[in-house]
Amino acid sequence: MQFTRADCAAVDASDPLAELRALFLLPEGLIYLDGNSLGPMPAAAPERVRAVIAEEWGQGLIRSWNRGSGGAGWVSLPQRLGEKIARLIGAAPGTVRVCDSTSVNLYKLLAAALANNPGRRVIVSEADTFPTDLYIAQGLIEQNRERECRLLLCEKSGIEAALDDDTAVLLLSQVNYRNGALHDMARLTALAHERGALVVWDLAHSAGALPVALDACNADYAVGCGYKYLNGGPGAPAFLYVAERHQAALQTPLTGWFGHARPFEFVPDYQPAPGVDRLLVGTPAVLSMSALEVGLDIALQASMEAVRKKSLALSSLFMQLMAQSLGDAGFELVTSTVEAERGSQVSYAHASAWPIMQALIARGVIGDFRAPDLLRFGFTPLYTRFVDVWDAVATLADVLRSGAWQAAQFMERKAVT
Amino acid sequence: MQFTRADCAAVDASDPLAELRALFLLPEGLIYLDGNSLGPMPAAAPERVRAVIAEEWGQGLIRSWNRGSGGAGWVSLPQRLGEKIARLIGAAPGTVRVCDSTSVNLYKLLAAALANNPGRRVIVSEADTFPTDLYIAQGLIEQNRERECRLLLCEKSGIEAALDDDTAVLLLSQVNYRNGALHDMARLTALAHERGALVVWDLAHSAGALPVALDACNADYAVGCGYKYLNGGPGAPAFLYVAERHQAALQTPLTGWFGHARPFEFVPDYQPAPGVDRLLVGTPAVLSMSALEVGLDIALQASMEAVRKKSLALSSLFMQLMAQSLGDAGFELVTSTVEAERGSQVSYAHASAWPIMQALIARGVIGDFRAPDLLRFGFTPLYTRFVDVWDAVATLADVLRSGAWQAAQFMERKAVT
Repeated sequence: MQFTRADCAAVDASDPLAELRALFLLPEGLIYLDGNSLGPMPAAAPERVRAVIAEEWGQGLIRSWNRGSGGAGWVSLPQRLGEKIARLIGAAPGTVRVCDSTSVNLYKLLAAALANNPGRRVIVSEADTFPTDLYIAQGLIEQNRERECRLLLCEKSGIEAALDDDTAVLLLSQVNYRNGALHDMARLTALAHERGALVVWDLAHSAGALPVALDACNADYAVGCGYKYLNGGPGAPAFLYVAERHQAALQTPLTGWFGHARPFEFVPDYQPAPGVDRLLVGTPAVLSMSALEVGLDIALQASMEAVRKKSLALSSLFMQLMAQSLGDAGFELVTSTVEAERGSQVSYAHASAWPIMQALIARGVIGDFRAPDLLRFGFTPLYTRFVDVWDAVATLADVLRSGAWQAAQFMERKAVT
Repeated sequence: MQFTRADCAAVDASDPLAELRALFLLPEGLIYLDGNSLGPMPAAAPERVRAVIAEEWGQGLIRSWNRGSGGAGWVSLPQRLGEKIARLIGAAPGTVRVCDSTSVNLYKLLAAALANNPGRRVIVSEADTFPTDLYIAQGLIEQNRERECRLLLCEKSGIEAALDDDTAVLLLSQVNYRNGALHDMARLTALAHERGALVVWDLAHSAGALPVALDACNADYAVGCGYKYLNGGPGAPAFLYVAERHQAALQTPLTGWFGHARPFEFVPDYQPAPGVDRLLVGTPAVLSMSALEVGLDIALQASMEAVRKKSLALSSLFMQLMAQSLGDAGFELVTSTVEAERGSQVSYAHASAWPIMQALIARGVIGDFRAPDLLRFGFTPLYTRFVDVWDAVATLADVLRSGAWQAAQFMERKAVT
């Protein structure tokens, strides 16, 4: 059956999440399918950050650090935002904190996991996971040379075989940033535990995109990103999760004053704060955290089940329309058509991926390119409509048909998109 | 000679830095002597951050990461802001980057310094330096147990004696956060080098407050804070410095993608970026960095020599007025009266320091309390007037005379001020 634009509009009209789109300000006429790289701006973000700057900072000054009357509670931002994220990722109160970047948080948790599994030496991960995860693991291994740890990289299909009695940590991104492949968190966590390994999950492409159930899956540790599906703004602070059972003995190499039991007593000896709070390090980035909170408050208005349902419908529609319009244009689908095996993005390999994506962006449809040959499209149910999917594919078909992309071959490759 | 308020007003009238005060928005009627803890809001900060949020993020979206046309150059913020700070601290281009928190940056540099001085095991520091510096050193030592490093704490007067042929790193705050004591960076750096040690300087209380000459002092490594004298906003990103001669062999344990030689090629193996760029880790906190840049642009309008001259005049006046008005009120000066031996703050010990500071704050003069018994007053020449110093002492005298502070004894102690 051929699907029409009117069919898409009809689905939008009955979409229970449709009204959330008004909570974002998207540029007029633009179709944004790159929320998996940088989420768009919530409409309330400018005013919220203005108030934090002009009132809390400008008028309250140093007093705004305090809780209670006269303060703005800045000192509790890592906890306040952490508890909000916890509700989005199936984590109990007291297990999630917002701080630092995903990379720095991963360093803390990988170090904690290695310390928590001292008799073993191998970190297992995937060769095509987001590279910073591998870089951080490599740096940590290099720094602790005497333990003779090593990083063992495998394909998705080889994870089970890679886990053996020397596996200390299994490090996985729940959703692959390139092809959108989704791991079965419950199964892999159980499998790793059976083999005596601990698991660190990177939720960069899953938190806010689909229901994550860290506690129910018996997860050990997790990190995640504030600026993708959580719409926290460019370079928003990241988050980390430590299961309650690992908190009492939790070790961290990054022992900063915000992770101290009594930071404002200024004693010379480090004493860890209780539980996950000890993973805080320096002074919280208040302005960036304020913008992130606006994004979190929107995500909390939707059920992650409803988000997932719409996400799969959007990505299914996209794949169907691509096959319908561009089945013979050289696009090779690298994302699974099986719903349970993909996250919230769809990627295609194409020999001319780079110039095609540039030409598409020039026509107001923003996806992104990942070297060497991938076009990546993110489907973000809080603000993406079914007609956007239709229009995106129609624009892409026009780019191909008109040959508009051929001129873009000679453009300078830019850093990020 | 008794100094009068009219004398203060006369000095303000001829102050060459006086016009910079208009670049800050300070609350009406408030005297802010806590810029050494959190600098006040530059008047241009709300509009700058609004533009970054509403235009660069809201309209430019992912494209704003790019340099050149259509981009906002977010990807270069760590370098762009780093080069600005370099000019304030006597550092060559290519030696300073803005990233992460002071604590995280100190971790990287302490690790780098230890790696760069492998035959030695001791980190020498001061017992009363800002505690996060000690905590970070303790965590790093604990993490590298096999090397059997240790932290040796001494008094300021004992530093020279503490340096021996097992000293790997001398870790010092250029200005002490409690009593404002200023180290002679040139002398101590030379001394450490003679003994075969490397030096990590913490500039949290000196960058933006006085002329710092890292390169001229032959400094090795330095970290510093964006939210104190640089007026970058609450939790502003911090900075780090690595002398050019240490950059080729620079090692870091925190090997994240922004420190990779080619982050956007997404290759699985870590390859360090050239020089100090390899100390970047995760995605830059764009919103917080934007506010910091506004503060830096103000500091760059003043010569640090002029700032220093006014700072010393302000703090000298404060000490003189305190002696004149409150010489018998139990305040014990813990800051040096010798200009070359103090930074930009003045601290007094007092048995009732806590309630006195609370009562003073309630009357609109903000300094801060540091446990157990210190009242701390920061003098920040970009916006503090000589009449402010006069009025602050007059208010403090009134607080003492009226006994207003006695009620504050029973207030709950808040976290930060």
